[in-house]
Amino acid sequence: VNEFELIEKLTRSLPTNKSVVTGSGDDCAVLDFGLPDKLLLFKTDAIVEGIHFKTGAPPEKIGHKALARCLSDIAAMAGTPTAALITIALPKKFDETVVEAIYSGINALARKHDVAIAGGETTTNPERMLISVALVGLVPRGKAILRSGAEAGDAIFVTGDLGGSLASRHLEFEPRLAEARWLAEHFSIHAMIDLSDGLAGDLRHILKASHVGAELLTTSIPVSRAAKLASKGESSTKPPLLAALTDGEDFELLFTVASKDAVPVLDAWKKQFPKLALTCIGKITPGEGITLRDKSGKRLLTAHGYEHFAK
Amino acid sequence: VNEFELIEKLTRSLPTNKSVVTGSGDDCAVLDFGLPDKLLLFKTDAIVEGIHFKTGAPPEKIGHKALARCLSDIAAMAGTPTAALITIALPKKFDETVVEAIYSGINALARKHDVAIAGGETTTNPERMLISVALVGLVPRGKAILRSGAEAGDAIFVTGDLGGSLASRHLEFEPRLAEARWLAEHFSIHAMIDLSDGLAGDLRHILKASHVGAELLTTSIPVSRAAKLASKGESSTKPPLLAALTDGEDFELLFTVASKDAVPVLDAWKKQFPKLALTCIGKITPGEGITLRDKSGKRLLTAHGYEHFAK
Repeated sequence: VNEFELIEKLTRSLPTNKSVVTGSGDDCAVLDFGLPDKLLLFKTDAIVEGIHFKTGAPPEKIGHKALARCLSDIAAMAGTPTAALITIALPKKFDETVVEAIYSGINALARKHDVAIAGGETTTNPERMLISVALVGLVPRGKAILRSGAEAGDAIFVTGDLGGSLASRHLEFEPRLAEARWLAEHFSIHAMIDLSDGLAGDLRHILKASHVGAELLTTSIPVSRAAKLASKGESSTKPPLLAALTDGEDFELLFTVASKDAVPVLDAWKKQFPKLALTCIGKITPGEGITLRDKSGKRLLTAHGYEHFAK
Repeated sequence: VNEFELIEKLTRSLPTNKSVVTGSGDDCAVLDFGLPDKLLLFKTDAIVEGIHFKTGAPPEKIGHKALARCLSDIAAMAGTPTAALITIALPKKFDETVVEAIYSGINALARKHDVAIAGGETTTNPERMLISVALVGLVPRGKAILRSGAEAGDAIFVTGDLGGSLASRHLEFEPRLAEARWLAEHFSIHAMIDLSDGLAGDLRHILKASHVGAELLTTSIPVSRAAKLASKGESSTKPPLLAALTDGEDFELLFTVASKDAVPVLDAWKKQFPKLALTCIGKITPGEGITLRDKSGKRLLTAHGYEHFAK
């Protein structure tokens, strides 16, 4: 059983109540607390030493990553983060300065996005550090972008470039909060997700939630320099395109819009965010699964994105 | 450096914003999202295998405890819980039925208190299981009971009986949500906390936040049967009174009211909750620290409650 199968089983009959607008299965939970014009976003995310960061990684960057991952999920709903609680589980013998540096990384990113760190706790995890962040935020009522709104014919867009994040980017990425809000304010975004499991895996989340398929033009997928470099390294046998499709932790935005909006989105984006690439990588289809298209024809993409329990 | 000293250091300069009414240092964070008559409560709590529960403990009870601890913190503010997110960190090889049973325990308690389980995540912690619960709830504006409102002369009350929780109670306790709300609705409760670190430790949190001291009448402290039994066991050398003062995880309510309200609270409580003891155990004093009073006189209590990092 892999992570996604287990979650699907566990989430089949969860308790709910009238506050829940969107429960498990999207980037954040969406809750209705009776605010006339806004809904609450609620998200948690944990990173574990040796899994999501190496022992001895710069602690400020560990802190940055812990909060940035959660912020990226708020971005994927086109929301605005408000306040976070930080849980740090530590071995009994820990270096106090490391914990303070982790908080420095968290605090710096929080200040940048006007997020309050409203508390949290420290607890014990004897063998390795674990940091869990819980976040609440707001989104205008009716404006949360879900995974389930993609329609056949939609153009598929991705921000930035993809793959090879493990080299350094996974500890330094900037959550695309302003970009996502701008998109939602100016265009009818049908579906959106942030890339944590890899393009193929996360696109599949949109396809599954929206009951559609996708066709990607392989030559248009923006492959990062890091993915190209990694493919030349001795330890890797992953071609750059496969890295861009399946490496995790890019934390870019993946979204779909009606085909008529494709050119207007691109034009307006270039003026608004000239330093960040936006690329149309394909279209949503009525079928299912992901088809790759290049000059030699079409083939079905079978490689999944990163799954946490898969080995 | 112990847990409380580290937290004090880390929380000195946390980022804040206009949403924060009460940040770190109370049972829950209190946030203002602009609801006219209500404030949001926000809390996280984690339990770790081998620390907060034994390997092989009944999984339904592990799940119960994970959520109940968070609910108990909402109770300590006289709030109402709304929705939770569950994070379970698991070794790579895990028993799927154990995880499902943990969720059964969580779900049963959630349904009892109309709490939605709005999602969460599974991640990897190779050596042991860790469960973190994030919870949001509501409290009427101006009605959250903080730790900081105790005044000299206040009567100190505790629900239930104390000590020896490790024998079984820590996995089975019922969060005092209805009791706390009833108290806040019918009386002016000055300060309240739930007993997680032990009576002495948690009373000190109230005293520190309120800048007062306390005098406890040792003969009135409600010592649990479990604490008395444990004191007769071969492995324990803790007298029952010390167990009631310093054992952790009772998850009863500790609160203070003006002395004029002491008898009315007791009388009304007996009618409302005839099955749950409520005991006046002493009074708030203008000084500092905890004084124990018995027939032989007064002495200063130096034993702290349980501190997670103390050894």
